[in-house]
Amino acid sequence: MSLVRVHNFSISLDGFGAGEGQTLETPFGHAGSRLMEWAFETRTFREMGLHGTTAGSRGVDEAFASQWGNGVGVEIMGRNKFGPQRGPWQDEEWKGWWGDNPVFHTPVVVLTHHPRPVLEMEGGTTFHFVDADPAAALEQARALADGGDVRIGGGAATVRQFLEADLIDHLHVVVVPIILGRGERLWDGLEGLEERFDIEATPSPSGVVHMVFSRKAAPQD
Amino acid sequence: MSLVRVHNFSISLDGFGAGEGQTLETPFGHAGSRLMEWAFETRTFREMGLHGTTAGSRGVDEAFASQWGNGVGVEIMGRNKFGPQRGPWQDEEWKGWWGDNPVFHTPVVVLTHHPRPVLEMEGGTTFHFVDADPAAALEQARALADGGDVRIGGGAATVRQFLEADLIDHLHVVVVPIILGRGERLWDGLEGLEERFDIEATPSPSGVVHMVFSRKAAPQD
Ligand SMILES: NC(=O)c1ccc[n+]([C@@H]2O[C@H](COP(=O)([O-])OP(=O)(O)OC[C@H]3O[C@@H](n4cnc5c(N)ncnc54)[C@H](OP(=O)(O)O)[C@@H]3O)[C@@H](O)[C@H]2O)c1
Ligand SMILES: NC(=O)c1ccc[n+]([C@@H]2O[C@H](COP(=O)([O-])OP(=O)(O)OC[C@H]3O[C@@H](n4cnc5c(N)ncnc54)[C@H](OP(=O)(O)O)[C@@H]3O)[C@@H](O)[C@H]2O)c1
Repeated sequence: MSLVRVHNFSISLDGFGAGEGQTLETPFGHAGSRLMEWAFETRTFREMGLHGTTAGSRGVDEAFASQWGNGVGVEIMGRNKFGPQRGPWQDEEWKGWWGDNPVFHTPVVVLTHHPRPVLEMEGGTTFHFVDADPAAALEQARALADGGDVRIGGGAATVRQFLEADLIDHLHVVVVPIILGRGERLWDGLEGLEERFDIEATPSPSGVVHMVFSRKAAPQD
Repeated sequence: MSLVRVHNFSISLDGFGAGEGQTLETPFGHAGSRLMEWAFETRTFREMGLHGTTAGSRGVDEAFASQWGNGVGVEIMGRNKFGPQRGPWQDEEWKGWWGDNPVFHTPVVVLTHHPRPVLEMEGGTTFHFVDADPAAALEQARALADGGDVRIGGGAATVRQFLEADLIDHLHVVVVPIILGRGERLWDGLEGLEERFDIEATPSPSGVVHMVFSRKAAPQD
């Protein structure tokens, strides 16, 4: 069975995966770019073409960042990661933050209570808008993954749901030494989560701490 | 000017410094001993005589734990660290969790809205019950410290107040890889705290991550 993985999910010391007030100009709300700065410096993120043009680092941050694509056949993301619109779609011209040729190059399942037609992008990315609980969404994603692993791309509300449903095998969380004070919390409702995972922490010279949660038991199904 | 320091303050991944439901049998509420287990294994905590009799570790956990007493002339603690009673004292026989000869061996200022007479214990510990805001409590503590540093001993509500008032020079926080889900949060109300501190993270083989916050500017006064 393919694995369900989270990579590069960045939270503040107080546990927020995004700030308050997401808009077109501020995809992370009042957090600005602070949660992702460690990643923007890496070779992997530079090669996505969105975050500067110099070569990018090859240290421990890159070692972790580079894992996100290996063997992944599909991403599942929440509707708020896809864009800043809320409620029924006002503007179906919106095609995500990532331009005409998005960085994913696989099918992407966008969870939403407001389904809309499939969006085919350049470079192999297709956005599928799906209204389903985590288990059903995972089944649909696996059907699109061509045998590859499933990446849960965030945001916090989405990762949390899959953790609650005990569907995640590998969770890479990056703790950034800032206190955001408000936003979307990752850990809410997950008391006792540590019992299901082996946990390893690795600090980076950049100041972040990489935490890897590896599921103790094999996936149940 | 003497320094104001926090040592060995242990929080869960979701930021709680104690669980819910503190009682005489469970000083950390539903957290049980999980927040402090890393410390109980160290030589410093073993020598306090409260947590087992074998020799104790001398690795990175001990290196941090052992800083707790060096040069400290007084502790300030919250009333909930002192004991499980709430509201007006029902039982003035209660003398803290630490027996007749407490581990402090210095004056200890206990913050409370319900002052009571000074308690003199064996071994140099005296408990002073003080109703004062952080700045005034610090002044009283310094007068008792005989030139030594001031340790802020917790719990979360107390550390948080002194951080809000920008009175802390050195903060050692230990992040324990558990999700408590409920209890007293350390970081609430401290948005932007990182701007005032240099922050360093060191993981331990025990699984915890030591975080040291060193104040950027010299104390203001
Ligand atoms: N920290 C990181 O590493 C990271 C990673 C990715 C994204 N982000 C940031 O995180 C923020 C978004 O995170 P978020 O926690 O606010 O939201 P999110 O997880 O991206 O999306 C939540 C929304 O998705 C829809 N949804 C989720 N589960 C569903 C289900 N089972 N069935 C139907 N619809 C479902 C709902 O929208 P509707 O009901 O409106 O359809 C829900 O409000 C953005 O600011 C983004 O930039 C951060
Ligand atoms: N994680 C750790 O490393 C660590 C360290 C120490 C303790 N703890 C645990 O933390 C828990 C206690 O923490 P907590 O956050 O609940 O409470 P706390 O900080 O120990 O005490 C808070 C109480 O102290 C009094 N107080 C605080 N500031 C005051 C002020 N400026 N003026 C007057 N009174 C003031 C108030 O009590 P009244 O109004 O009732 O007088 C307040 O409710 C305990 O479970 C303890 O075992 C954990």
